[in-house]
Amino acid sequence: MDIETSPLAQPFPEMPAINGVTLRVARARYKDWDRCDLTFVALDEGTSVAGVFTQSACASTEVEMGRKQLKAGTARALIVNAGNSNAFTGHRGAEAVEQIMTQVSEGLGCAPDEVFVSSTGVIGVPLPKDRAREGVAAVLSARPCGWEDAAAAISTTDTFAKGAHASAMIGDTRVELCGIIKGSGMIAPDMATMLGYIFTDADVAPEFLQELLNNANAQTYSCITVDGDTSTSDTVLAFATGKSAHPRIAGWDSPGADAFAAALTDICRELAQLVVRDGEGASKFISVRVTGAVSDESARRIGLSIANSPLVKTAIAGEDANWGRVVMAVGKAGEPANRDTLSIAFGGVWAARGGVPVEDYDEAPVAKHLQGDAIDLAVDLGMGDGHAEVWTCDLTHGYISINADYRS
Amino acid sequence: MDIETSPLAQPFPEMPAINGVTLRVARARYKDWDRCDLTFVALDEGTSVAGVFTQSACASTEVEMGRKQLKAGTARALIVNAGNSNAFTGHRGAEAVEQIMTQVSEGLGCAPDEVFVSSTGVIGVPLPKDRAREGVAAVLSARPCGWEDAAAAISTTDTFAKGAHASAMIGDTRVELCGIIKGSGMIAPDMATMLGYIFTDADVAPEFLQELLNNANAQTYSCITVDGDTSTSDTVLAFATGKSAHPRIAGWDSPGADAFAAALTDICRELAQLVVRDGEGASKFISVRVTGAVSDESARRIGLSIANSPLVKTAIAGEDANWGRVVMAVGKAGEPANRDTLSIAFGGVWAARGGVPVEDYDEAPVAKHLQGDAIDLAVDLGMGDGHAEVWTCDLTHGYISINADYRS
Repeated sequence: MDIETSPLAQPFPEMPAINGVTLRVARARYKDWDRCDLTFVALDEGTSVAGVFTQSACASTEVEMGRKQLKAGTARALIVNAGNSNAFTGHRGAEAVEQIMTQVSEGLGCAPDEVFVSSTGVIGVPLPKDRAREGVAAVLSARPCGWEDAAAAISTTDTFAKGAHASAMIGDTRVELCGIIKGSGMIAPDMATMLGYIFTDADVAPEFLQELLNNANAQTYSCITVDGDTSTSDTVLAFATGKSAHPRIAGWDSPGADAFAAALTDICRELAQLVVRDGEGASKFISVRVTGAVSDESARRIGLSIANSPLVKTAIAGEDANWGRVVMAVGKAGEPANRDTLSIAFGGVWAARGGVPVEDYDEAPVAKHLQGDAIDLAVDLGMGDGHAEVWTCDLTHGYISINADYRS
Repeated sequence: MDIETSPLAQPFPEMPAINGVTLRVARARYKDWDRCDLTFVALDEGTSVAGVFTQSACASTEVEMGRKQLKAGTARALIVNAGNSNAFTGHRGAEAVEQIMTQVSEGLGCAPDEVFVSSTGVIGVPLPKDRAREGVAAVLSARPCGWEDAAAAISTTDTFAKGAHASAMIGDTRVELCGIIKGSGMIAPDMATMLGYIFTDADVAPEFLQELLNNANAQTYSCITVDGDTSTSDTVLAFATGKSAHPRIAGWDSPGADAFAAALTDICRELAQLVVRDGEGASKFISVRVTGAVSDESARRIGLSIANSPLVKTAIAGEDANWGRVVMAVGKAGEPANRDTLSIAFGGVWAARGGVPVEDYDEAPVAKHLQGDAIDLAVDLGMGDGHAEVWTCDLTHGYISINADYRS
């Protein structure tokens, strides 16, 4: 199957090297393909780590182990296998992960628990241990590479490599944040078929890095959806090498904490939106802004109900300002809503206000807006101050084509 | 847009007349079409009524009024408008409904509150009162018609008319149940864009009829999904004329209560499944059987998570026994599940058992099963005794085509 690059793709940005981070890629041939599918990131001693994972009740071995490894708060390496998720593979899957952790730790001279492993791809096929062994051996001695090569190597059904960059001033010291991410389907909040990694030279205590990542996640990865489907392997990890010369950020009172938190949220938002831009079959990027809800969380849930509605997503694919379907999606969200105070706008033009269609509603500018590839949908519930923004893409024939014969 | 009849369509069954029920249809021309779109069912005095409605927070006026009307427990008439849902139309929508209730009640010589009204079609456009007035005048004096004509007149995007018949013995007396239903998209539990009506000559007390309908709903209408979208107008009403000569069924102790309950559930299941068979773009009817869950409700939720998963539905459309996506859908359901006790079968062949792929799994019979149009998917959670069955259809290019330009 030939998949064309998403029309919403963005060029890979210029991204600086991060002090304390070395990237390498190699061919493990987890699938019958000729591309790098094994990524190895070496992290200098003293690197803090934080992570968020899928909430699936059937999470992969990698996710279960990652959760445990996080407790120590430090990391020395990241391995990402692409093409095989190693999920739902029983004890054989666990053995493969342990083998990788041991092999990398011996190569680096660190503890196995400091080696984080992620895998993405088909579920239910154990990761082939022989290919993993040869692949790890090759990647340990490979030449360092750049961000784009690593972003490409962690990809599966992605149609473009995804990276983002941010920076923050901690006092007089500028710290850099670089991130790569993969994912294009099985995307829903509570994470996605999404593997994302953020690297920074900032010096951040692990516990506080975890708090900041949780906050960022709530406003970014938890606000995107492609198909409402949630993978068993979703993972976002943040690594802070601490190579930058500023006092450690250990809490909100530390100088620069706010700036670093803002930069982390920015880069997470950018990475999350890139996943939506590669949503399977996507032709339009949709921002859903919800205001006037009884709480921010209620606003987010209503936004996701809209963003996950097949009928809303197909209407937008058809460039149809069918706000009736938005009413439907608000109504089914299971959140407080009042038909008679509900307002809906496309591209800044209100189609309905206070529960009735706007009398002199001019559909011409709305039709023009819908012909573009960046769609703004605003919903005001007229009930409270809760607000949220979520991002999704339209639902097209492309999604069906990609997913009706992915495995074969 | 030309929509072909669903490949899963079933011929309209032979259905007897129900004593105390008279059907009539007419052209109100709610849309620019030349077909009957106004249905009037006259019910003899003494008819009990029960109903279940959408759980949307933005329910239509008809739904709000219907909920109130039910309290009296009796009905004399049903009016169904097709082509305009009259939802999200503010006070003008309410006026149109009141006008219809008044006009019909004057024609029949009953109270306005005994006239139940449903509307289905586009959201956000007030039901045109002049067309409703002329349509009601025409339908009041139309010649009685049969079930199939009524089933066709209540339809919107349906590709075939849907009816079902059941009967039960109450002592020596045979009672008949006839039902018609419409709906093909925006179908999800907590009801659907679904209007369903069941008529019986049995004599059933309104409160008990409501209890039986609630029970039946939980096992039938609440177990189907096409796209997870929930309409603002979903309604199922059951009318019992009491013309049959048996002692009134007023509770579980009444003779024949069990038999009537079973017949009611049977007809509801048949009607619900017909809606799935007309699922927009459907090419395969999918039964999802969940066993081994911690409770029946948990099993139902897991079944619906599977049945609503775009990735599972597209895999089946592609005739791909991709059980990894089933694992994913189980995992995201938010219900207790254990990766290591999970088993999955297609067409009776277990692909995975106890958390690992079956060693000698033979995909040939499964591939053959998936080429058919009736797909059985079984999931055993290996945790408890909870079980449920839900029904859905596959997700195809047809769904996209139908919904990307429905309104225009």
